[in-house]
Amino acid sequence: MPSSSRFLAGVLGGMGPLATVDLLQKIIAATPAERDQQHVPLAVWNVPQVPDRQRALAGIGASPLPALLDGVEHLNRLDISHLIIPCNTAHHWFDELRAASRAPVLHIADATLAQVRFALDGTPSLRLGVIATHGTLAAGWYQQRLAALDVEMVLPDEQEMDNLFVPGCYAVKRGEAAAGGQRFEQLAERLAARGATHLILACTEVAPGLAAVQSHWLARSIDSTEALARHCVALWRQHMGG
Amino acid sequence: MPSSSRFLAGVLGGMGPLATVDLLQKIIAATPAERDQQHVPLAVWNVPQVPDRQRALAGIGASPLPALLDGVEHLNRLDISHLIIPCNTAHHWFDELRAASRAPVLHIADATLAQVRFALDGTPSLRLGVIATHGTLAAGWYQQRLAALDVEMVLPDEQEMDNLFVPGCYAVKRGEAAAGGQRFEQLAERLAARGATHLILACTEVAPGLAAVQSHWLARSIDSTEALARHCVALWRQHMGG
Repeated sequence: MPSSSRFLAGVLGGMGPLATVDLLQKIIAATPAERDQQHVPLAVWNVPQVPDRQRALAGIGASPLPALLDGVEHLNRLDISHLIIPCNTAHHWFDELRAASRAPVLHIADATLAQVRFALDGTPSLRLGVIATHGTLAAGWYQQRLAALDVEMVLPDEQEMDNLFVPGCYAVKRGEAAAGGQRFEQLAERLAARGATHLILACTEVAPGLAAVQSHWLARSIDSTEALARHCVALWRQHMGG
Repeated sequence: MPSSSRFLAGVLGGMGPLATVDLLQKIIAATPAERDQQHVPLAVWNVPQVPDRQRALAGIGASPLPALLDGVEHLNRLDISHLIIPCNTAHHWFDELRAASRAPVLHIADATLAQVRFALDGTPSLRLGVIATHGTLAAGWYQQRLAALDVEMVLPDEQEMDNLFVPGCYAVKRGEAAAGGQRFEQLAERLAARGATHLILACTEVAPGLAAVQSHWLARSIDSTEALARHCVALWRQHMGG
């Protein structure tokens, strides 16, 4: 935390902008507050002019790193006390962003795994379908952490990625959340047919899509955005002495 | 606009935090975008530790001005190109905030009146019920502007303010949006009984409340948050040459 002891959670957002709004909503919903002043103080860089992370990792687009570092530099100017990034794929550049940030940065997969551990208490026979970008799956952040917990997982195959996940993701980004949600639901059913009992929403576009179709899968999902929100609220309550 | 020609809309928010999220959602919904990068770049100060505006104006609480100026000072550090404030009552300190901001500040009542002019085109016999805080009503921003347009208005009486508006507003602030929405609906029915055909939602807590009860009044409302969102998107499209 910087020299000032002010609590100010920074959000490096915009990837996409709706996922950032989803995070802010989930932070508010997770905060026990009787009045405005008890809510989490947040500084939000919701600047979506970041080159496409999926295309960059596929080798067909510019690197998002300069734009991400520009966001971190601006958040540094605000003396934020913590930094969170509501985009899983952007965590490909986590080490560089952590090095540039004056505030500590939480890895979204660590926040999400804390929720998996919590869920395991109640449902020890969890089999988790992982919904994520190619980049996130290739990085293996979730697979490694789930394997360390001995949790079984079900991953999408290439056809499901190309026909369901990717088009669903880009539908949410162009404002067609329900169309995206329908694709994600179909993907969830495919993963369930191969044994998944629950899902990890390891891409922050997924929850707004599923919410737009009021999917019953939301009740059986561990959502990385919700996980960031809960972590942020826990830090705030700790700061407030609650 | 500062020396750099970067477009970056600044939001002095947190009053309440949900009203700020409502603004961000409405900006996204109002933006014609095919992908992330076409959405409005925003820097959002969503820090709700601002003394209660309504209590300050009633003479029973500390001034919010120092906290508001602190927010403006932080947004100045980011070289924002425009500033909007999604809280009507905070516009009581508009002159001081405008003087402190390096970016031009839009008055929320001006943005809202642009939408009233638009609505008058289609519905010339509009009679507008004004839903706002005591502070906003006492300042007269809306009454003066509506009078200049020869628009008839219906204002809440003291009993309606005390029994419906104020408890509704604070219900939204403590996370009970539906309870707030029920009060606002009752207030709308009272104003309608005195001749209001449409509403001006001149407090940014009102739309989230009415949305939570899926109120039919939303379709007959000119919402100050929506007005700020549309103005912001219009500036962005102008910048993009659209």
